[in-house]
Amino acid sequence: MRTFETVSQFSRMLKNLDQWLHAGVAYAQKRNFDPDALVHARLAPDQYALVRQVQSGCDTAKFTAAYLAEQQAPPHPDTEKTITELRARIQACVAFLDAFKVADFGGAEERRVAPPWMQGKSVRGDHYLIRVAVPNFYFHVTTAYAILRHNGVDLGKLDFIGVRNWADCAEW
Amino acid sequence: MRTFETVSQFSRMLKNLDQWLHAGVAYAQKRNFDPDALVHARLAPDQYALVRQVQSGCDTAKFTAAYLAEQQAPPHPDTEKTITELRARIQACVAFLDAFKVADFGGAEERRVAPPWMQGKSVRGDHYLIRVAVPNFYFHVTTAYAILRHNGVDLGKLDFIGVRNWADCAEW
Repeated sequence: MRTFETVSQFSRMLKNLDQWLHAGVAYAQKRNFDPDALVHARLAPDQYALVRQVQSGCDTAKFTAAYLAEQQAPPHPDTEKTITELRARIQACVAFLDAFKVADFGGAEERRVAPPWMQGKSVRGDHYLIRVAVPNFYFHVTTAYAILRHNGVDLGKLDFIGVRNWADCAEW
Repeated sequence: MRTFETVSQFSRMLKNLDQWLHAGVAYAQKRNFDPDALVHARLAPDQYALVRQVQSGCDTAKFTAAYLAEQQAPPHPDTEKTITELRARIQACVAFLDAFKVADFGGAEERRVAPPWMQGKSVRGDHYLIRVAVPNFYFHVTTAYAILRHNGVDLGKLDFIGVRNWADCAEW
């Protein structure tokens, strides 16, 4: 897996997530309910609500880039209470991700990384990226999407991928 | 992104998905309901039910490997009606994925691929993998997981990643 391209893809997906939240606000206005009610929505009582799915998606992307580039991640305290604040959190994370360059990840795939939750152990960079970071990241953004869909927000797979139609992928 | 490692990760996640379905059966037995009721569960009336999330996750993995290795994917008609049949579908897909070797994907990232749904257009292999196949794959397996969680099945993030504890990642 190419680290830089994957970090760029995280940024692309977070921009999509921002648009899903925007669609959530539009849906709330159309149905005349408080958009911030969505912030607390969840799919199971013992699963994270939307707010924490968004925070966790952002943090997974941010710390993955930081660990693999051996840089410090900017702090983002989990204080968001509204969709507007969540969208600002996403923007801050995207700005951090978009500042990376290919060279920042030189040697990252062979280097070992030791995230704090590994309790002093370490994992090789490429395995960390493919087997831990990518599934974790998509777990949180997909669950955020699912919470919005479950609550009636009008979204589809093209919104998830971030294209107007499938043939648009040819522009990549 | 390294194609072979990503296809291996698809296989790993499908084996995890198989275990989530197994947990769904155990939960149904414990609560005394028909496990196959879960097959039709969905998070929104206009989103795929569990059966089609599993089929689509398998197909995304299968066709990604086939397109990038320039091989033919085996046909798997969407006829499953039970958890047992879905688990067999997963096994068939995993067997196909696990037969690939690193050399099968030589040049795959630079080659252009033209999946039928791109309507005659094509996308470079690495972009197809990172921007289309990986998000689509995780979309379906995460939504399958979310459907099971929403219906009360006892699962957590470690089950999603497929480790007993986070320090286990060090074994990679």
